[in-house]
Amino acid sequence: MNTDHYPSRLLEAATSEFAGLPGIGRKTALRLVLHLLKQDMADVEKFSSSILRLKKDIRHCSSCHNISDTEICNICSDTKRDHSIICVVENIKDVMSIENTNQYTGIYHVLGGIISPMDGTGPGDLNIASLEEKVAGGKVQEIVLALSTTMEGDTTNFYIYRKLQKYSVTITTIARGVSVGDELEYADEVTLGRSITNRTLFEASFNNGKAY
Amino acid sequence: MNTDHYPSRLLEAATSEFAGLPGIGRKTALRLVLHLLKQDMADVEKFSSSILRLKKDIRHCSSCHNISDTEICNICSDTKRDHSIICVVENIKDVMSIENTNQYTGIYHVLGGIISPMDGTGPGDLNIASLEEKVAGGKVQEIVLALSTTMEGDTTNFYIYRKLQKYSVTITTIARGVSVGDELEYADEVTLGRSITNRTLFEASFNNGKAY
Repeated sequence: MNTDHYPSRLLEAATSEFAGLPGIGRKTALRLVLHLLKQDMADVEKFSSSILRLKKDIRHCSSCHNISDTEICNICSDTKRDHSIICVVENIKDVMSIENTNQYTGIYHVLGGIISPMDGTGPGDLNIASLEEKVAGGKVQEIVLALSTTMEGDTTNFYIYRKLQKYSVTITTIARGVSVGDELEYADEVTLGRSITNRTLFEASFNNGKAY
Repeated sequence: MNTDHYPSRLLEAATSEFAGLPGIGRKTALRLVLHLLKQDMADVEKFSSSILRLKKDIRHCSSCHNISDTEICNICSDTKRDHSIICVVENIKDVMSIENTNQYTGIYHVLGGIISPMDGTGPGDLNIASLEEKVAGGKVQEIVLALSTTMEGDTTNFYIYRKLQKYSVTITTIARGVSVGDELEYADEVTLGRSITNRTLFEASFNNGKAY
């Protein structure tokens, strides 16, 4: 419980709001609030409104379900990208991570979660129906599954695989293996096992690993 | 530089605002913003307005300069507290820290900083004149200096000491010594030296260290 002696209820209210954010304790929250208090009114207004505007005006791309400022996101509306390859990810952070590699030129499909009976998330809660529609359209050649290698991720992968099996689409999954720069002796057995099973042609490693 | 691929300018703007807070990197900022985005509109409005209201409506106690919701803060307006003892601190966090000990029943005076030629903070930038006025009023019996034991803290202590010397007021400073629970061999020499010089009567340690 909070037994701190706040000199002001306004200060306490703002500190409590920050302390409600993940990974922010009450001490850090107070530090952040006091920092904001020292800023100019205009800066505090900018901070405050940036959050409110994000919540009010943010949209989701009607095609890939990624966060977007427009009806169709930048990636889906980019004619230079390969629309015949769709990478399936759990959330928008994964899209950002893959985009940051600059290695992928296809488009995305954000599921909005993964199947998790423990959290009460079933296939019906995810954007799977719209993925099937896209594939049924016949223009998609490859689906790249890029979900976490957890029980939930594997379950979701398998569910999607079963749903899309009947269409003429290649279903791939991102490579799992020893990280670049890692020493073999520190890799876990499952990862190392997958690395050996899914070994690739040595020549393919010349091109900086650029698969696309 | 930021080379991340944000799917939305609104998201990027909000993330940048959070990343501007002390100790918050861009990854953490994004995590916090995505957390807020998942909350209800009402919660986001509450978060956003708590900061704005704090900045707009916060006041400083006209007597002790502590943050306050009212003209005179709760501590200064508390008739049960001993108004003849004033504890001089650097900022409002120090007031909270001392209040949290539940050991002090006097009132405070917040300087709003310490003398630091490096940061360009001179005595004129601090609430020292109003402290002298209070002491000149003749009702104050003791001034407890509770500043950091840094060069700046010592300079400020000495400056205040010189200013108040001419009045009939006892000027004390908080005890410096080995922390409760610390082993002697790990204490630094200066601290241990002060602990020995400023040794107290053993009987005084019975009462849980309660000086007031």
